[in-house]
Amino acid sequence: MADRTLYDSVIHDARRIRTSETILDLLSWDQETMMPQAASAHRADQKALLAGIIHEMKSSPHYFDTLSRLLPSSNDDSDEAVIIKKLHRDIAKARKLPTAFVQSISRATSEAFDSWQRAKHQNHFVLFEPHLKNLVDLMRQKAEYLGYAHHPLDALLDDHEPDATTEEIAVLFSSLKTKLRHLLSDIQRLPLYGRPRHIVTSTLEEQMHICREVVTFIGFDWNRGRLDTSEHPFSTAFHPTDSRITIRHSTNNLLDQVMSALHEAGHGMYEMGLDRQHFGTPLAEAASLSIHESQSRLWETVIGRSKIFSEHLYSLLSHHYKGKLPFASSHDLYTELNLVNCSLIRTQADEVTYPFHVILRFEIEKELMEGALEVHDIPERWNTAMKEALGVVPATDSEGCLQDVHWSLGSFGYFPTYTLGSLYSVCLFQAMEHSLPNRDDLVVRGLFAPIQAWLSEHVWRHGRRYSSRELVTKALGRAPTEDDYIGYLRSKYVG
Amino acid sequence: MADRTLYDSVIHDARRIRTSETILDLLSWDQETMMPQAASAHRADQKALLAGIIHEMKSSPHYFDTLSRLLPSSNDDSDEAVIIKKLHRDIAKARKLPTAFVQSISRATSEAFDSWQRAKHQNHFVLFEPHLKNLVDLMRQKAEYLGYAHHPLDALLDDHEPDATTEEIAVLFSSLKTKLRHLLSDIQRLPLYGRPRHIVTSTLEEQMHICREVVTFIGFDWNRGRLDTSEHPFSTAFHPTDSRITIRHSTNNLLDQVMSALHEAGHGMYEMGLDRQHFGTPLAEAASLSIHESQSRLWETVIGRSKIFSEHLYSLLSHHYKGKLPFASSHDLYTELNLVNCSLIRTQADEVTYPFHVILRFEIEKELMEGALEVHDIPERWNTAMKEALGVVPATDSEGCLQDVHWSLGSFGYFPTYTLGSLYSVCLFQAMEHSLPNRDDLVVRGLFAPIQAWLSEHVWRHGRRYSSRELVTKALGRAPTEDDYIGYLRSKYVG
Repeated sequence: MADRTLYDSVIHDARRIRTSETILDLLSWDQETMMPQAASAHRADQKALLAGIIHEMKSSPHYFDTLSRLLPSSNDDSDEAVIIKKLHRDIAKARKLPTAFVQSISRATSEAFDSWQRAKHQNHFVLFEPHLKNLVDLMRQKAEYLGYAHHPLDALLDDHEPDATTEEIAVLFSSLKTKLRHLLSDIQRLPLYGRPRHIVTSTLEEQMHICREVVTFIGFDWNRGRLDTSEHPFSTAFHPTDSRITIRHSTNNLLDQVMSALHEAGHGMYEMGLDRQHFGTPLAEAASLSIHESQSRLWETVIGRSKIFSEHLYSLLSHHYKGKLPFASSHDLYTELNLVNCSLIRTQADEVTYPFHVILRFEIEKELMEGALEVHDIPERWNTAMKEALGVVPATDSEGCLQDVHWSLGSFGYFPTYTLGSLYSVCLFQAMEHSLPNRDDLVVRGLFAPIQAWLSEHVWRHGRRYSSRELVTKALGRAPTEDDYIGYLRSKYVG
Repeated sequence: MADRTLYDSVIHDARRIRTSETILDLLSWDQETMMPQAASAHRADQKALLAGIIHEMKSSPHYFDTLSRLLPSSNDDSDEAVIIKKLHRDIAKARKLPTAFVQSISRATSEAFDSWQRAKHQNHFVLFEPHLKNLVDLMRQKAEYLGYAHHPLDALLDDHEPDATTEEIAVLFSSLKTKLRHLLSDIQRLPLYGRPRHIVTSTLEEQMHICREVVTFIGFDWNRGRLDTSEHPFSTAFHPTDSRITIRHSTNNLLDQVMSALHEAGHGMYEMGLDRQHFGTPLAEAASLSIHESQSRLWETVIGRSKIFSEHLYSLLSHHYKGKLPFASSHDLYTELNLVNCSLIRTQADEVTYPFHVILRFEIEKELMEGALEVHDIPERWNTAMKEALGVVPATDSEGCLQDVHWSLGSFGYFPTYTLGSLYSVCLFQAMEHSLPNRDDLVVRGLFAPIQAWLSEHVWRHGRRYSSRELVTKALGRAPTEDDYIGYLRSKYVG
């Protein structure tokens, strides 16, 4: 790096921006978990003010000029070079969107979110339709502003999954769908298929207590984190020393709460594991949403719903529930946690049928962006595809295409990261065995520190240095494919 | 107001500043109540960044120029005129302190706070002495920067108690001290004097539950507020729709927690009662610290420790504690809540002896600022005065001059507001009887809405329009004097 003073000024500015963003994140966390109900208008003012200040910082011409002057050669992969290249990429991208356009998206999503809530509540897609149409138009316009090599959805994917292309995901998902269908028909012939789940109820206090124990067990560090309740479970982090997760603020099924806590703790521990020294730079940010999801899925599903982890879970739950648990053994609990069922709601789906929901969302997004599908025809498209894929047809749009909030928030190109994350979680756990041959024994003994250390070495410490695919390829020693996921499922469900 | 556009721009800027300050306040609230322990370094970065942004907003020459251009005639008391005059006063004052000087105070208080903690913990005044000496020097310098008519302490009082003078407080306190001494000797002859208090222990959950019930009873609005726990009880508000209070995060004496909750709820309800329409301007800010304290003392002491309120409290506590309460009747509880005892610790003092602690702090501050007392001699000065006033001598400085945090934080001129607040709370409750002749009957019936409405009419809605003294004088129909406090105490304790 030629000019140390210039470089230092960039790091200073990047840290200021990131620190300000973490204040904005605290305002959101507080809003979801703590804020009194009547305060929402003032909270909106606080957030709008700070968002404006951050936008000004990011759009400083001086900042971008300095980044441009420091831009290193493309083969320089020193820390400094990676930081400058990624920051330059981010700011160059942000500058492509006119402020007025960003504001119109912000207004459109506020309105779309409200209309989506009403539409879902009243089961009336028509209420959401004009807003969604407007958003799709804005998203196509956004893609034009940002530019793309092949497909307009590429431009939107980039917000969540940098370097991924629509084409590559389409190929992967198409093959995955075919193979999942074969697997599903095999599973459907097994006696356990379709058995309804037990509902284990308990007070919210009990649920919080058990969830705390479970995430403590896998290594969530309370000195650097919190667990609270909110309307929808989420995780957020302001710094590796301040990573916060939530479970649902209602006495849902206890097992859902526990798996939710494992999921969010996976996200939370990733954030705790990011490089503190590089805080504020791309080397201390998560690689992508799919890698983030790989961490949550690893703990929730690959480990959390495994036979060996079920023994720990059974003993933790039995300790609190004594005789009241509707499972006679850890094997019963394992069975319960892995029941497969063709169902309507994505967030309640098992790991075999879950990808069908995601793939359909992706296909619809792709068609919308191409102009091959009209917003008006989404409900029919959804219902037909659900019948074809899973043999179930939603009785209402609320249980169908209206079930998910994402599009109303302007998050297009987000859904694929769920399934990419599931795939990567399986690949990473597989890769772990190379350097940790006693991996399963560690899980049996409840020793998770070496697993955390492996994740730190292969995922956490790299920040955004590598793309998701590069990161997983490096860990696995070869490129991940859909067969990694299919193989994992087949061995678990069909044996 | 001549120029509406200029005026609107001032209001816009004032709101931006205040909104940013409320974000800073949220960072502090979260730090005290929620933040994981390891996050303090990052929190310090977040706060320093935002404080810098706020400082830039406040020191904008354009903002001050606009305020100066809009400055109305001194007899204009329209809302707009009051807002401009107070804002101009604030900003003119802030501009008198060079940024480097403000930063050196900030550094000095950080170090002084640490050294005070160590000194108090190790009972070793010498550890704190050089830092306190440095702070006193900085405070004298601050007074010179700010300017003052008669006494350097006037300049420091202004931060907490605008328009109050050292002279006026000295006269009031001197007379109060003499009269309190007479009263105290009368009380010391009564059989109850000096009886030790009961300690009622319970779990933190129980304490939170009871405190919630008690503050709900007096009208704390949960739609616009929260109650949490922290190291030291405090209240903070980001907006009239978001006012938050805490009790101590430890299973202290239950009665202390309940009285603490009433105290903080008094502060919190004042903030809820400020004028939302004028948010961000001086008309939506508390009049002063003494008026703030008058609100907390009103609910904690004047009402909270009254005979009639004791009946409510007794029935609330009995409901939870059934037979376990060490009081046989509401009268026993009333007696317990009003035991008088000459003791060492200000925060545990009763309402008769409490002012002695405050008056001594004020006298020492005055002498330090005059150069009549050296920091080195504070312990001796403290111990001699405590013996003279209350007949007790601290065995250690930790129980003596080191007990309070305020000076280490650079808060000089703060202590008097405690006793002014007590005086004003008594005056306001007295004034209430003019327009609410059934005042006591309302308390008996637990109907606090008319009392809240009275406070809103006479205190809350005025914001900073009037000085503390003006506000109380207008409500009472005459100027408040020390005899109001003495009369209240005499009738309560001697009869």
